[in-house]
Amino acid sequence: MLRRFAAINFAAVAVRGRFWRDRIDTVRAHTIPRQYDVLAAAGLLDPLPNEERHQADIHRRRDAEIGKWLEAASYSLASEPDPKLAEKVNNLAGALADAQMADGYLNTWQIANAPEERWTNLRDNDELYAAGHLIEAGIAHFQATGERTLIDPVLKYVDHIAATFGHGEEQKSGYGGRQGIELALARLYRVTRDDKHLDLAAYFIDERGRHPHYFDIEAVARGDETEHFVGRTYEHFQSHRRVRLQHKAVGNAARAMTMYAAMADMAAERGDAALKRACESLWADVTARHMYVTGGIGASRVNEGFGAPYDLPNAEAHAETSAAIGLAQWGKRMLTLDLDRRYSDVMELVLYNAALAGLSFDGAKYFRENPLAADGSHERWEWHPCPEAATDIARTVASIGGFFYSANEEGLAVHLYGGGSTITNVGGRAIGLTETSDYPWDGDITLTLDLEFASEFTLWLRVPAWAEGASARINGSGVDVSGNLQRGYLALKRVWHTGDTVVLSLPMRVVRLKAHPAVAAATGRTALQRGPLVYCFETVDNPGDCVENLILPPGSRLGSVRRDDLFGGIVAITADGVVAHNDWGRGLYSPRTGNGKPATVTAIPYYLWGNREAGKMLVWVPET
Amino acid sequence: MLRRFAAINFAAVAVRGRFWRDRIDTVRAHTIPRQYDVLAAAGLLDPLPNEERHQADIHRRRDAEIGKWLEAASYSLASEPDPKLAEKVNNLAGALADAQMADGYLNTWQIANAPEERWTNLRDNDELYAAGHLIEAGIAHFQATGERTLIDPVLKYVDHIAATFGHGEEQKSGYGGRQGIELALARLYRVTRDDKHLDLAAYFIDERGRHPHYFDIEAVARGDETEHFVGRTYEHFQSHRRVRLQHKAVGNAARAMTMYAAMADMAAERGDAALKRACESLWADVTARHMYVTGGIGASRVNEGFGAPYDLPNAEAHAETSAAIGLAQWGKRMLTLDLDRRYSDVMELVLYNAALAGLSFDGAKYFRENPLAADGSHERWEWHPCPEAATDIARTVASIGGFFYSANEEGLAVHLYGGGSTITNVGGRAIGLTETSDYPWDGDITLTLDLEFASEFTLWLRVPAWAEGASARINGSGVDVSGNLQRGYLALKRVWHTGDTVVLSLPMRVVRLKAHPAVAAATGRTALQRGPLVYCFETVDNPGDCVENLILPPGSRLGSVRRDDLFGGIVAITADGVVAHNDWGRGLYSPRTGNGKPATVTAIPYYLWGNREAGKMLVWVPET
Repeated sequence: MLRRFAAINFAAVAVRGRFWRDRIDTVRAHTIPRQYDVLAAAGLLDPLPNEERHQADIHRRRDAEIGKWLEAASYSLASEPDPKLAEKVNNLAGALADAQMADGYLNTWQIANAPEERWTNLRDNDELYAAGHLIEAGIAHFQATGERTLIDPVLKYVDHIAATFGHGEEQKSGYGGRQGIELALARLYRVTRDDKHLDLAAYFIDERGRHPHYFDIEAVARGDETEHFVGRTYEHFQSHRRVRLQHKAVGNAARAMTMYAAMADMAAERGDAALKRACESLWADVTARHMYVTGGIGASRVNEGFGAPYDLPNAEAHAETSAAIGLAQWGKRMLTLDLDRRYSDVMELVLYNAALAGLSFDGAKYFRENPLAADGSHERWEWHPCPEAATDIARTVASIGGFFYSANEEGLAVHLYGGGSTITNVGGRAIGLTETSDYPWDGDITLTLDLEFASEFTLWLRVPAWAEGASARINGSGVDVSGNLQRGYLALKRVWHTGDTVVLSLPMRVVRLKAHPAVAAATGRTALQRGPLVYCFETVDNPGDCVENLILPPGSRLGSVRRDDLFGGIVAITADGVVAHNDWGRGLYSPRTGNGKPATVTAIPYYLWGNREAGKMLVWVPET
Repeated sequence: MLRRFAAINFAAVAVRGRFWRDRIDTVRAHTIPRQYDVLAAAGLLDPLPNEERHQADIHRRRDAEIGKWLEAASYSLASEPDPKLAEKVNNLAGALADAQMADGYLNTWQIANAPEERWTNLRDNDELYAAGHLIEAGIAHFQATGERTLIDPVLKYVDHIAATFGHGEEQKSGYGGRQGIELALARLYRVTRDDKHLDLAAYFIDERGRHPHYFDIEAVARGDETEHFVGRTYEHFQSHRRVRLQHKAVGNAARAMTMYAAMADMAAERGDAALKRACESLWADVTARHMYVTGGIGASRVNEGFGAPYDLPNAEAHAETSAAIGLAQWGKRMLTLDLDRRYSDVMELVLYNAALAGLSFDGAKYFRENPLAADGSHERWEWHPCPEAATDIARTVASIGGFFYSANEEGLAVHLYGGGSTITNVGGRAIGLTETSDYPWDGDITLTLDLEFASEFTLWLRVPAWAEGASARINGSGVDVSGNLQRGYLALKRVWHTGDTVVLSLPMRVVRLKAHPAVAAATGRTALQRGPLVYCFETVDNPGDCVENLILPPGSRLGSVRRDDLFGGIVAITADGVVAHNDWGRGLYSPRTGNGKPATVTAIPYYLWGNREAGKMLVWVPET
């Protein structure tokens, strides 16, 4: 059994590879400044809002969105100074601090509109969710700037919350309808190492789903009906039963991910075997029954969440950006419980596809829903009444380095590639690791060590499941990859010296994927993948009615081609397909004719779709 | 332009071929007697019911179901005497007659429960629908027995209805929420040739969809809300607009079919070009955008009717037996407007597949919904709260001969094959036609003429669109089929003599069908057809997990085999397919491996599914 791993914080990781560097720079230069303007224009940055109570839900969640923006901006400041941005960040942090009530309560909407109603509707009012994002913002701001403007009010607010909630006679035994604070408190604990923060996180996790149900109790106390609320079921909030008894993914997907991630944190911090088992069951359920080939989850538009197993419609997919990001965050935490590529393969898949698709190439527009087929009407937006897809992808890209590595006392594990370096401490020894590659465009990855002194430790290098035939060399000498594979990680244990070099070669073949037979939406279809990237066909590359009539018969020639003219240089896939004749006349059914004209078609990575002119898009292509 | 055709009544057709004879005999011997017992057990045959008002809708429609049973029983009596059955029929007809009110009103539920509320809720109460089926029963009973027990009360009731509805000051300008009386009145007119019957049918058709909406007017008069009713929209009743302006199929499918059929009748009887155009548009919409490969329609369970174009889910299909029968009835009437195989091909498809599947092989059980895939849980029933699937299929099979032929002054058209004979009048000459074949199991069809005297007329023989390469011989001499094809009918115009023989050979190849690319539920799949029969795979013929993992790659060997051990002798299809390995492990997606073991599998005609042990069933088989 390996010792427990801890993820290496993004601040200790320098991402230099072309793929992610470009995304990080775009977020810093374009996304974060524009989001500030857009949030301001929507009235969400006014220090003390005086809204009508009936205003959109988003105003109730304003502190959450402010918090997420502050988090992204702080990450950006941490990796690159920017006085103008720093001023905005500090002003906003100061305004939040100024709004705090004497007893520590800090929710700007509630304070301005209905302070007497605070904590009376945990189910719907999202105060604890907003608090969670203030906590995350406070941590990020403090870590980025060293200033205590926001972290001090946050710590005071956390004390207020700890005093308010619990099993004491004067306390409310509640928890939030929308999860978030649990994850934030676990993170706060990793900074403060103050048990009270972990205890409070544990309280919220453990309390969830108890009966009689707190949401009923508080509804009765308000004089409300207990049945009428947005989510309609407690499954929607994953509060239908105690979390350790949850083994099937239900309800709203973004909420579920935040909770499952917090459960994984808690299982790791507390060594809680029952929580770990629940996490493992839920992971298997989500990834083997509810996940798109892009890593998207939450297929159903009805609840923006989980529907029936294997029900994964393409054009009608909800597959929200934030839910995908949540799955990556959860996977990152599962990796601290077990170093197993079943977690990191999904984490990578999600980050490179379902999550990244949410951000336009120019960093100015977003997708909230991420369908796998489109008719040209699904377009990116600059602002959305539910803007979390925007703020979530910004903070995720700005801290992407935090997904790359983890370490324990025995060594260092590399989960993601793409050009990065880190310095960390393994069993008391400082280890510097530099990875250079043009991944994911190219599969040749070079890792070089920079050590205080020669020492024995293990380097675990993820060999993705798709990389069949991967090879590796240490200082030029071949390594038996399959013989040294531990749960999908190439485990290289030896006495390492400064300058030691490992070259990992991952074959970047174009792969035809098939879906489990129960996925009706993918029956008779294939999807193309190369490395971690899933590809799609767009009309702009395949004009006319090519995309909607495209067939890729089994055995079609597939190839990859460097396209420096597209998106600053990518690898596209070319395929010899068939464009079916549109000769159905007035009938619906016709004998198989094999009619169609051969066509060489081009697929681009899914994360780049919807950035050029509107048109059809397709991931799962019919094979007949 | 061909002269208008009239369908030859079933009573003038003797069906002798093995396929339909067996179904007719089964309905006579088993279905009709059991339905009587089952309807009686459900309390629907009590002469004057005294039910609570809140009872199931079916009790309000009881006269309709009694009428349909009387119709089927009368058809059966017409083709084969049965004193026991005749006694039941006469008793029931007499009981209906006895229930009639002095002013002619005749609805047994309403009379017993709320006579003062008659005609106050045409939208929901189905009085006019029930009246329509009493009319059809009256006609069938009179034609079968020559007795006036039922037809006289029916004629009196029709007079009462004609006096009640119309534009006069004392009249109600309404029409029924559930159509039916229009078709029945057109049929009555063809018997009585009394213009008042056609005028009343025309009134109900023309009135439909006028604004202000009669259903609103009567709701206000009752003091009810106008918005709250079962169908929720007037599209549900096809009363959203005037019928001549209806060009897209909407709402409940069984209702729509009854109305479209009546529209076709009216277009034919009145030479109404606008009505004919509406019928043609609706036909194109239904058959090219809303029809299953089995001929089933009304895909959506939400409204038991039409959903979005091309939205034809397999396992979730509603595809009601009664709606399919309605489509065949409509097609039969379209053939009187234009002799065109686009109507008869669909009519045949429906009768041999979507409709006939509704009746179990032993004639004792039914399907109301007819899905194209099943997991073993969709089972036939002996009784259903909405039993119209049972009574409709009984009366349809009992009168199947009525779909076979039509005639005009220039000749005789043959739409269906399967062993039958008729004597009809063409331009004043009696023509006898005998068709012998083992169709649909075999494609060799022999037609022999028996004439009063030699004379010139045309014999039109349908050459189904699927019968590519059909050939024909007259008295042994070859005929140029394609050169003499008129809208899909082989037109043989000549001086015919008694004993002249035409042999039509329809190639009975096993055909792989593909669906229009917009039918997502059939993408990458194929369905097998042989002659007019669509086939399906059942677990009972293909044990284990074969059906759910079956793949029929393009080019698979397909063959047909005579199976005397199944259902009294059928032709089954054998195919060399592949059973995919169930090796998805814990993942959802996997590189295409082509894994699977070859298997020779057996398909049976779709209409026979669900008659043996429960298991999976599949029509559209994945090709990859």
